Amino acid sequence: MLKKIYFDYVYMNLTIDQSIVAYKKNEVPIGAALVYNKKIIIKGHNKTIVNNNPMDHAELLVLKKAARILTKIQLRESVLYSSLEPCPMCSHAINLFKIRKLIFGAYNIKSGAIDHGPRLLQLSNSYKNITTIGGLLEVKCEKFLKNYFKKVRRI
Amino acid sequence: MLKKIYFDYVYMNLTIDQSIVAYKKNEVPIGAALVYNKKIIIKGHNKTIVNNNPMDHAELLVLKKAARILTKIQLRESVLYSSLEPCPMCSHAINLFKIRKLIFGAYNIKSGAIDHGPRLLQLSNSYKNITTIGGLLEVKCEKFLKNYFKKVRRI
Repeated sequence: MLKKIYFDYVYMNLTIDQSIVAYKKNEVPIGAALVYNKKIIIKGHNKTIVNNNPMDHAELLVLKKAARILTKIQLRESVLYSSLEPCPMCSHAINLFKIRKLIFGAYNIKSGAIDHGPRLLQLSNSYKNITTIGGLLEVKCEKFLKNYFKKVRRI
Repeated sequence: MLKKIYFDYVYMNLTIDQSIVAYKKNEVPIGAALVYNKKIIIKGHNKTIVNNNPMDHAELLVLKKAARILTKIQLRESVLYSSLEPCPMCSHAINLFKIRKLIFGAYNIKSGAIDHGPRLLQLSNSYKNITTIGGLLEVKCEKFLKNYFKKVRRI
């Protein structure tokens, strides 16, 4: 059990590293990573500004690329890590891919859809076999988000 | 006013044509089209099977391509037509792109997120200036969906 939690910390730290990459590129600092069979398949970050596309959230990009790499339409045995609680769009994509476990860092009170707002993965018609864990390395995940929004407001 | 409604029928019929294209390719028959400045910018259909990606819904593909064609990150003055009530993923994408009007045909009682389920565009933090109209050419939109599911169940 301890070992399992330890792995989660390692993967979440890699996810946070991705959010720092986004921060340095002046993107909203959110990172995501997908783990399958205890191996990182893909990690990435938010690219809404560089791609001029408000849908290019870290989670969505990672899911899309993972499905291409694994050549699977469902990612049943996968774990998705995200530095921020996913929005409704990403939450439903997680549902469509039938992800086994979602682990996120910071809570998103305004736009989150896991433990806030519409709580999409708790609806009766969503995929039943998903476990969601929020708040892993929460403070570290929030740090760069807070810094980013301070910086944006200053401009 | 009459003229406006007439246009909506024309565009919805083009959208339904796209759902028929999907039907012929054994995809779930859902079509979408984006209109900007009274011109169709892009129309398309569901490609989840051919692209091996459960996220490749008609609406999401059309929004992504429209943003690329119009080189805009927001599609404020656009109208999105869909033959089926959008799911939570597509509904939030519509919200992110700040679409002005969404017109859909058939209602999706099980997985819709506009007039059913989480009703995402009615949440307090969603984009305020969107108008949604459901049920335009509803029976025609439903027809191919019903036929598709009959066909799938037979296999």
